[in-house]
Amino acid sequence: MTTEPMRGVLSPVITPFKADYSPDAERLIAQCRWLLSQNVGLAVFGTNSEANSLSADEKLMLLEALVEAGLDPARMMPGTGCCALSDSVRLTKRAVELGCGGALMLPPFYYKGVSDEGLFRNFAEIIERVGDDRLRVYLYHIPPVSQVPITLDLIDRLLKAYPGIVAGVKDSSGDWSNTKAMLDAFPGFGVFAGNELILLDNMRGGGVGCISATANVNPGPIHELYANWETPEAERMQEEVNAIRKFVQQFPMIPALKQIVAHYSGDAGWARLRPPLVELTGAQATDLLDGLAERKFAMPGLPTVQKGAAD
Amino acid sequence: MTTEPMRGVLSPVITPFKADYSPDAERLIAQCRWLLSQNVGLAVFGTNSEANSLSADEKLMLLEALVEAGLDPARMMPGTGCCALSDSVRLTKRAVELGCGGALMLPPFYYKGVSDEGLFRNFAEIIERVGDDRLRVYLYHIPPVSQVPITLDLIDRLLKAYPGIVAGVKDSSGDWSNTKAMLDAFPGFGVFAGNELILLDNMRGGGVGCISATANVNPGPIHELYANWETPEAERMQEEVNAIRKFVQQFPMIPALKQIVAHYSGDAGWARLRPPLVELTGAQATDLLDGLAERKFAMPGLPTVQKGAAD
Repeated sequence: MTTEPMRGVLSPVITPFKADYSPDAERLIAQCRWLLSQNVGLAVFGTNSEANSLSADEKLMLLEALVEAGLDPARMMPGTGCCALSDSVRLTKRAVELGCGGALMLPPFYYKGVSDEGLFRNFAEIIERVGDDRLRVYLYHIPPVSQVPITLDLIDRLLKAYPGIVAGVKDSSGDWSNTKAMLDAFPGFGVFAGNELILLDNMRGGGVGCISATANVNPGPIHELYANWETPEAERMQEEVNAIRKFVQQFPMIPALKQIVAHYSGDAGWARLRPPLVELTGAQATDLLDGLAERKFAMPGLPTVQKGAAD
Repeated sequence: MTTEPMRGVLSPVITPFKADYSPDAERLIAQCRWLLSQNVGLAVFGTNSEANSLSADEKLMLLEALVEAGLDPARMMPGTGCCALSDSVRLTKRAVELGCGGALMLPPFYYKGVSDEGLFRNFAEIIERVGDDRLRVYLYHIPPVSQVPITLDLIDRLLKAYPGIVAGVKDSSGDWSNTKAMLDAFPGFGVFAGNELILLDNMRGGGVGCISATANVNPGPIHELYANWETPEAERMQEEVNAIRKFVQQFPMIPALKQIVAHYSGDAGWARLRPPLVELTGAQATDLLDGLAERKFAMPGLPTVQKGAAD
């Protein structure tokens, strides 16, 4: 991994599936290449990537395909935190070997009400077994989904045990007061907001960027906000990205993102989700696309296919 | 898989780990052999097995080791339901090939608030891809942990689509009214209670047994209750197994079970848990073992080692 800390806007890249639900490396490579062209980094295997609907083998295959395709691993922060310690070690080790800029780690999320001591042991074991100074761990706090939180006490303990290695956090609590508490408690820690609605607040508070679902479809404007957060234009830019975000998040997020990419790329196969997730209803899809058109939404530079050409 | 429906008492067998946290097939084989000698079947890779702290490869290795050791696969109901469809298919297919009596399937549990349609597609894909008439699916309803329920509507739809294949359910809701609703709605469906506290009620209501954490340590008496549920002794037997269960469940369940086996076998290594779970504190362990001694608890026939000889 690089020694340059990761900053800016990252996308938990949505994962394309073929008709048989197998992950589609080719489509993913093209999408990631486009996101990088919009100055957005690659938090592949995040919640919005349906990462937990993929096996460890499938994640490794996709990550290797991205690096082999020539995409810059320093811009990648793959999700490598699994329920099973052995899977987390395997994925994280490979991410470091491939030169990834960081690894985004969920806590093990099956057992509920686990102790900070147990979570500390989980992360400590992963770090020790990977045993590589290039590792940069970003802790993933998303209690609405994982139901297992990353507490301030746990961060404090990990930072003391593994300074430099434990590099930051993605706070997807949806609670700005929690993000603020992280910023205040750990100066210099790489705090990513969990969405762009609080990107400006996060930057002003000492944060380093955001990792946001909607960066999959609106990467350019979100990056512009990040790049210009200290300018007089920032407030207006924040309002503009908020308008898109607040509209899109009225729909089930992952199917909505896939529907948008399917529509603007002309590649209907992008709308496919792996069970247990399902696509939008026809009415939802119409409302979503009509609403975006009204808002003059665009995805400049997105690779397109002739309608009906791709599966 | 056998065509004989599974019945009786099964144990979600606790999983032993070596000092490096790798799963210990030898200890597991010995424990499973003892459980079978107590007339208790093997629901390996359940919640109490720390199954979701194991990788798919680790589960396959252990399952194959059990069958290779000569234990009867018809008495095995391994947990094969994972977050990733691809893992669920792989584990379930292998379980069928090995001749397992059933497969206990969690729903994919990372994404919350998923639809019954999405869950139906998950189970349908697994069943179709395994594509073997010997498959017997037992749905695993444990909302306090998985946070993703198996609703009556979902069971109804699966039963209509895959009669014979969808063979039963383990209800670990902790809510007798839910178990009762399942019994009433689906006559002939293999309903296992999630613990022995309601074993008698479940049998009287048309159920087929229980799959209980405490069957790891108190298998004989729980089986006796099952075998004699229609006799005048049943109420007394129910009270006796309840007394042990209600005492043990005052402690964190999985570490308590492992502590009990460690103590009564003389094999301290059994007390080890994989992160994120942690062992009992010293005070908890003392309270637990003292309380069991007061209750004249015993584990007849449990293989023992000379104190300090193992691991």
